Amino acid sequence: MSKPDIARLQTIVGPEHVKHDPADLYVYGSDSSVHRAMPDAVVRPGKVEEVQELLRYANESRIPVVPRGSGSGMCGQVVPIQGGIVLDTKRMNRILEINLADVYCRVEPGVIDDDLNKALKPHGVFYPATPASSRIATIGGEIANNASGVRSVKYGATRESVLGMKVVLADGSLVTLGARTRVEASGYQLERLFVGSEGTLGVLVEATLSFVRIPKYRAMGMVLFDSLDDAGEAIAAVMGKGVALSMLELVDSVAIRAVNTAMDLGLPEVDAILLVEADGMVKEAVEYEVEAARELCEKHGGKLTQLSYDPAERARIFLGRKKLFPALSKFSDTMVSTALADDMAVPYSRMAETARKIHEIAERNGVVMTAYGHCGSGCMHTKILMDTASSESWEGAQRAVAEIYEYVRSVGGTTSAEHGIGISKADAFKREKADSLDLMRAVKRAFDPNNILNPQKLFDAPRGWLTATDLRYVASR
Amino acid sequence: MSKPDIARLQTIVGPEHVKHDPADLYVYGSDSSVHRAMPDAVVRPGKVEEVQELLRYANESRIPVVPRGSGSGMCGQVVPIQGGIVLDTKRMNRILEINLADVYCRVEPGVIDDDLNKALKPHGVFYPATPASSRIATIGGEIANNASGVRSVKYGATRESVLGMKVVLADGSLVTLGARTRVEASGYQLERLFVGSEGTLGVLVEATLSFVRIPKYRAMGMVLFDSLDDAGEAIAAVMGKGVALSMLELVDSVAIRAVNTAMDLGLPEVDAILLVEADGMVKEAVEYEVEAARELCEKHGGKLTQLSYDPAERARIFLGRKKLFPALSKFSDTMVSTALADDMAVPYSRMAETARKIHEIAERNGVVMTAYGHCGSGCMHTKILMDTASSESWEGAQRAVAEIYEYVRSVGGTTSAEHGIGISKADAFKREKADSLDLMRAVKRAFDPNNILNPQKLFDAPRGWLTATDLRYVASR
Repeated sequence: MSKPDIARLQTIVGPEHVKHDPADLYVYGSDSSVHRAMPDAVVRPGKVEEVQELLRYANESRIPVVPRGSGSGMCGQVVPIQGGIVLDTKRMNRILEINLADVYCRVEPGVIDDDLNKALKPHGVFYPATPASSRIATIGGEIANNASGVRSVKYGATRESVLGMKVVLADGSLVTLGARTRVEASGYQLERLFVGSEGTLGVLVEATLSFVRIPKYRAMGMVLFDSLDDAGEAIAAVMGKGVALSMLELVDSVAIRAVNTAMDLGLPEVDAILLVEADGMVKEAVEYEVEAARELCEKHGGKLTQLSYDPAERARIFLGRKKLFPALSKFSDTMVSTALADDMAVPYSRMAETARKIHEIAERNGVVMTAYGHCGSGCMHTKILMDTASSESWEGAQRAVAEIYEYVRSVGGTTSAEHGIGISKADAFKREKADSLDLMRAVKRAFDPNNILNPQKLFDAPRGWLTATDLRYVASR
Repeated sequence: MSKPDIARLQTIVGPEHVKHDPADLYVYGSDSSVHRAMPDAVVRPGKVEEVQELLRYANESRIPVVPRGSGSGMCGQVVPIQGGIVLDTKRMNRILEINLADVYCRVEPGVIDDDLNKALKPHGVFYPATPASSRIATIGGEIANNASGVRSVKYGATRESVLGMKVVLADGSLVTLGARTRVEASGYQLERLFVGSEGTLGVLVEATLSFVRIPKYRAMGMVLFDSLDDAGEAIAAVMGKGVALSMLELVDSVAIRAVNTAMDLGLPEVDAILLVEADGMVKEAVEYEVEAARELCEKHGGKLTQLSYDPAERARIFLGRKKLFPALSKFSDTMVSTALADDMAVPYSRMAETARKIHEIAERNGVVMTAYGHCGSGCMHTKILMDTASSESWEGAQRAVAEIYEYVRSVGGTTSAEHGIGISKADAFKREKADSLDLMRAVKRAFDPNNILNPQKLFDAPRGWLTATDLRYVASR
């Protein structure tokens, strides 16, 4: 692999849009994962033609190109593990079209999720596949990771909202994929393949997204459980009966303590809390789903409290869940919250068992772990709290991560629900997908024969996340 | 390409599961399209290992393999254009698992759609991506074509219901793709690429599908319009406002006449009928959507009639639409109903204009055409009624098809909504997807380097459907 010629990059995008001093490069060397690596240059193209020219140059000169949104990814997807060019898409942030009659919008990749929803709101519609990081996450990044979030239980993940896209391929050519219509059966659905491809197949320069009507009513409540197992059985019962919730979130006892410690929210310190929400245009329908969820939860020992239709009240109920991620950082003075083994999906019937297993594995390996997440879509989040200056903690974390993923595979789960693979999860991913890795590599070669696009990620990530890149957190090794 | 050794095939699947006399081969030489070609052998494997051995043999010997369900496809997808082996999947028809708690089922490819729904019904759930041919269509065929149907406006197409699958690749290896969970972000979503790949990338041997709760209430009504344009504006208004219908069907005046002629149903002979259905667990919610649809339709000159929640009454209302396809065959003694230009998708705002354009193009080219379909998902169906013994009619049909697809492209539509490409639509498809055909070919090579799987379809179909294969209908040329 070669290094980029800065002058050439400046010619393509303008000198003001190329960064190459070490301070800037340092910033662009990490994301929200534990990983770190230095790029050779950062370019910020403003239009499609510039992306095309950049890729033509990089492809001819064999220079790695790592497409990047806001860097809120948690697995090292945008860490430039082989150096080269970080292609920052955030200048391409126009909402190109909101077409209400045809129920789609077209956006550039650098549009922030919340900004899209702000633009859609006056029309009474919203883009539903929103992750928790919507305040900073770009649509391009969300598509690259097949992001999902609290409302994906009802509205699906990013893949369910992407109708089509324009992509610049490794050789600089521009292709239009998918359609603008609700259904399409015109050949290979390459736009679906792009969703979740983590910047390894091309650079997204435009996306056509569907949206949905904003419901008139939303009801949210908190279901308290004295036993995590009971909460797990309630989850399986509610999902198995097809109760149409718009949110079903699990918060475990570690997470409850963390939030209470950091924020004094006064969450009930029970063994597990489920947050339930239903939405709709008609109050009776919302009540029906809440009632169905309440009945099934009560059958499994849960107690529904604080049910409210009021937006302010709902925001208050959700606050603990919303602030969980920052709260975990304040859990203890000596421990750092790391995005390790941070999101997997397991079948509904294994939710409680998985949460218990996570606690057990954490304890055995000398780290602290939470279990929470969008259990309505099968998503189980964790964070590993650890002393990042201690090599023992790092070793314990590594063992815990390996054990957790082995367990998740054994119950028919998958390595990532919504954060993607990047570098951090590559070992587990390679084990889970062992029989289709060659196929993925063949697809990668078909799209990017010179392997310039985000190289050494996913199936090609080096073994062992701890040594794959520098780490943002310093261990005393 | 080589011809298969019958004895070898008999060794693999048993002599009783290999057909090679001309009468059988003739039957397996066509589907529901206009095309025809003779295979060299038909094999009916009963298990995964047999499929693997068949593909290993075919791949080593360079013998074409065409996977086939029930042959209800309309574009020649399973017509063995290069001879070789037709791989009939219908013996592999077991429902392997119905997992209610985890909300998925696993089925073999030869399971008939209606049979799956019969098995799901006692559990209060259904598989929603059902096409009109559900009485005979296999799940494997539906996945190969990304089928959709009357309820896809609410529940999505096949691609939205497929969580994962097992596939035998061209070299005989077995791979597991996707997951069993509602969300997944673990690398390339190859299972999504398989949906709609028309048997060109591998042989599906197992699918993991999601299902949904059967609603307690369904209300259906008929909205009458004196003007097709008004009906079109009503469609755009209803969809643009996000009215959550579970069905929105258009029937044009030609179709109304055809049904009345064939069946004496006494449909009102207006310019256009919209069938609307809403469903839900709560009657108030169903009423809300029906009322919203009624209001918008009335604003555009429509009149809602025959609204009913009664299953028998609903079936009667839907009968005209349901029987439209056979009714068209009886439209006239001298005309045959052909699946040409039979399904495209266009933006909602272009529905009426498209229907009018279809009528105009038909008239100009001396054929009769209907416009109907699942307009709630953007799907516009047509049939060309023509004298198949007349070469003039064939020429007119060819011109009409070309003009229609050119128009559909010009308004941002796509060649196929749900029937796929096969042979019939390859010319239009290649024009529409010109910039991504090379990418599709590269993907095909990555999966099937020897090009044994359903060769000469999609991007590789020969130019000109009239000469691509023999035709089932004889023209006096």
